[in-house]
Amino acid sequence: MPKTLLPAEPGTGPAESLREIIENQGLEAAQERLKSYPPHVIADELARMDAVDAGVAFRLLPKDRALAVFEELEPVDQQQILEGLRDRSFLDLVEGMDPDDRARMLKEAPATIVRRVLEGLSPNERRMTSALLGYPEGSVGRSMTPELVALPQDVTVRQALRTVRAEGADAETVYTLPVVDSGRRLTGVVELRELVLNPLDTPVSELVVTEPASAYATDSAESAARLMRETNDINLPVIDSENRLVGLFTIDDAVEVIEAADTEDVARQSGSAPWAGHYMATTVWQLARYRALWLSLLLVAATLTVGVTQAFEATLEQAASLALFIPMLIGAGGNAGAQAATACVRALAVGEVRGSDLLKVIWREFRVGLVLGSMLAVLGLVVGTVFVSAKVALVVGITLVLICGWAATIGGTMPLLARRLRIDPAVVSAPMVTTLVDATGLILYFVTAKAVLGI
Amino acid sequence: MPKTLLPAEPGTGPAESLREIIENQGLEAAQERLKSYPPHVIADELARMDAVDAGVAFRLLPKDRALAVFEELEPVDQQQILEGLRDRSFLDLVEGMDPDDRARMLKEAPATIVRRVLEGLSPNERRMTSALLGYPEGSVGRSMTPELVALPQDVTVRQALRTVRAEGADAETVYTLPVVDSGRRLTGVVELRELVLNPLDTPVSELVVTEPASAYATDSAESAARLMRETNDINLPVIDSENRLVGLFTIDDAVEVIEAADTEDVARQSGSAPWAGHYMATTVWQLARYRALWLSLLLVAATLTVGVTQAFEATLEQAASLALFIPMLIGAGGNAGAQAATACVRALAVGEVRGSDLLKVIWREFRVGLVLGSMLAVLGLVVGTVFVSAKVALVVGITLVLICGWAATIGGTMPLLARRLRIDPAVVSAPMVTTLVDATGLILYFVTAKAVLGI
Repeated sequence: MPKTLLPAEPGTGPAESLREIIENQGLEAAQERLKSYPPHVIADELARMDAVDAGVAFRLLPKDRALAVFEELEPVDQQQILEGLRDRSFLDLVEGMDPDDRARMLKEAPATIVRRVLEGLSPNERRMTSALLGYPEGSVGRSMTPELVALPQDVTVRQALRTVRAEGADAETVYTLPVVDSGRRLTGVVELRELVLNPLDTPVSELVVTEPASAYATDSAESAARLMRETNDINLPVIDSENRLVGLFTIDDAVEVIEAADTEDVARQSGSAPWAGHYMATTVWQLARYRALWLSLLLVAATLTVGVTQAFEATLEQAASLALFIPMLIGAGGNAGAQAATACVRALAVGEVRGSDLLKVIWREFRVGLVLGSMLAVLGLVVGTVFVSAKVALVVGITLVLICGWAATIGGTMPLLARRLRIDPAVVSAPMVTTLVDATGLILYFVTAKAVLGI
Repeated sequence: MPKTLLPAEPGTGPAESLREIIENQGLEAAQERLKSYPPHVIADELARMDAVDAGVAFRLLPKDRALAVFEELEPVDQQQILEGLRDRSFLDLVEGMDPDDRARMLKEAPATIVRRVLEGLSPNERRMTSALLGYPEGSVGRSMTPELVALPQDVTVRQALRTVRAEGADAETVYTLPVVDSGRRLTGVVELRELVLNPLDTPVSELVVTEPASAYATDSAESAARLMRETNDINLPVIDSENRLVGLFTIDDAVEVIEAADTEDVARQSGSAPWAGHYMATTVWQLARYRALWLSLLLVAATLTVGVTQAFEATLEQAASLALFIPMLIGAGGNAGAQAATACVRALAVGEVRGSDLLKVIWREFRVGLVLGSMLAVLGLVVGTVFVSAKVALVVGITLVLICGWAATIGGTMPLLARRLRIDPAVVSAPMVTTLVDATGLILYFVTAKAVLGI
């Protein structure tokens, strides 16, 4: 029976949690059970447990499966597991990891772990790992694999295949074979597919793709990953500033990078700090901490609305019914702004919009806002008339047009400005736009009210 | 010089847009220029143009590049291009496409195009395409490739490689070789890597991975893609209900599916309908249409707040200063709710949270909300005292605790309830939670006020 357990679907994953099995049926049973699930499912179970339980469960795994499961874990969980292990099994794990996975784990690990790991490694593995750690955080260099098979330029398919057989065992992938000159400068790429499908005496030069897509080791991993998405390559050669080949960025790592980036954007856009680790395994205090800063900043920013409302207190006293529509109006403005902000952040992320499109985007969103505002105005007129009077309804209607036009413009502009200022556009998040629009929207509302109601 | 043009970065992409080049320097120059960019960059340029310009520019491409560029385009853009082409070049393109790409394009194409395409295809291509179109929309069946190389169970590496050479040319990938029994039922998978690295007389059975991860053709493409992300496979075998092999889901398509799903979630979470196509190429009217429905629904929902405020109008008249804090309080509640909703939608999407976690999530988010609320309450006390009085400040502080606890709980609950009701959790979007919290938050506020101020 094929393993199609899809944790993203409801009710999948082991019916009983590992923890329950351990408690109710003992270690023996749990050990049995573990054999029947693919590594990624076990990893997901471990990630849902607290450090202690996860450690216990992990030690139940047979040696050969332990590494497979370990590689599926998030860096934070990997550290927890490692901290609980005795030297022998500790070393087996870290020695067995791919250099790039190891580097990713060490990036976030406490110094003690880092030292323990590096000291435990064989010289060769240690050299590769330190090399990766030498590249800036978030760069392709950090996520690439140095374990690849490179080919010289002037060989036949026969010779190339011999090289692959000789060196392929240690390589993370042999499907993309970079071709380099005597100075190890990247001159092209040949797919293993071509070697297998063509006659043995074909010169590799006839099969090579010259000017392949590639990335500099210092490029951001996210941009490199999105480049791979566009070129549909399964491996991207990584080069240094002299165009010398230093590694391959594999698609599985690219997918992780894209997912991480999207998760981060989503978190940022809801005004919360992005975090590593499993939602169910994060403590309440941690969750609160990730959200606290933004929430407080937004509240402080929101005091603007208090000031604005106070400035127009006289107007409110003369027409108390104006207060009724405050939540609805700033809500509409907030939503219109959030829609525009989210659309633009996403368009920037996937490369549909560039910093240079700023003016075009402003003009687009301004018109979109007016269209939507005019539409809402109709509803506003009805609501206003029903609850209060035609005159107040008119105020509400006009305000909706103004607020939506203004909100969409701000929402579309902020992310692009952020990008220009080299700030992550997602940080200029929907709630930030909303809060800004709340205060300014109130001004539009009260000014319109004074004009229309003549007070 | 390596092509590291990363459209996601500012200031990249051709300095001049193709359109400008055509206008200023004529077709000749444009044709020259097109030679110097990789297909995905040209595709991005075309996507930014209107249908007419894109058609003109596309026809400038030399025959061999045309297909490469065409394959990089989004389905909607592909249709625009096709509509503008004469039969010969039209047929070259559709015949040259991979069956799954073709199916994806036809999925969204008008009937006329579909007929024209299917009639133009060679019998074999037509058969494969219609087969894919037979699977439900959004299923793996739609996005898989039927062009693969399958191996019988009892062959040696030598025989297997011969099969690959014989059939590999037409296959979309030869890196993952499904192993099937006489009834074409999937029994395992062997990587081309293993065939290349092992002696020619090794029985394939020794290299095969039995019980490989796989998906049913009717499974959702998104879940299959997320499964591949967890297993790090570059190709996922797709089987029918009798476990017969029907295709391979390739990683490049999986990445597209994940990106599309994330884009959709992001759009939904900002209360806007997801759309296909390029932001810069979408008209103002289209953008407005995607956002109009939700915006109106939210406004209608927001009339609740008008009703609530009116119900407490007496309270407002006795303590007019209460109006000052309405925007700030509902803003805080909205933000707290949005944070929780977004975190849970994402956790569901990546499979960290399951429908069965509902109660755990409620309890988690409720406590997170109280923690955050108590923190904001301190700020609220200060603001309240500064602007009005200690007594009103007390009302504001207490309300913040209540609103945040309530908002986070709602925000965490709605996505999971949606999942249980088989609704896309992202649809229960942040703005929906916000609007709900606005109205209920006002009640909490006024009730607290009456209690504390004794009115």
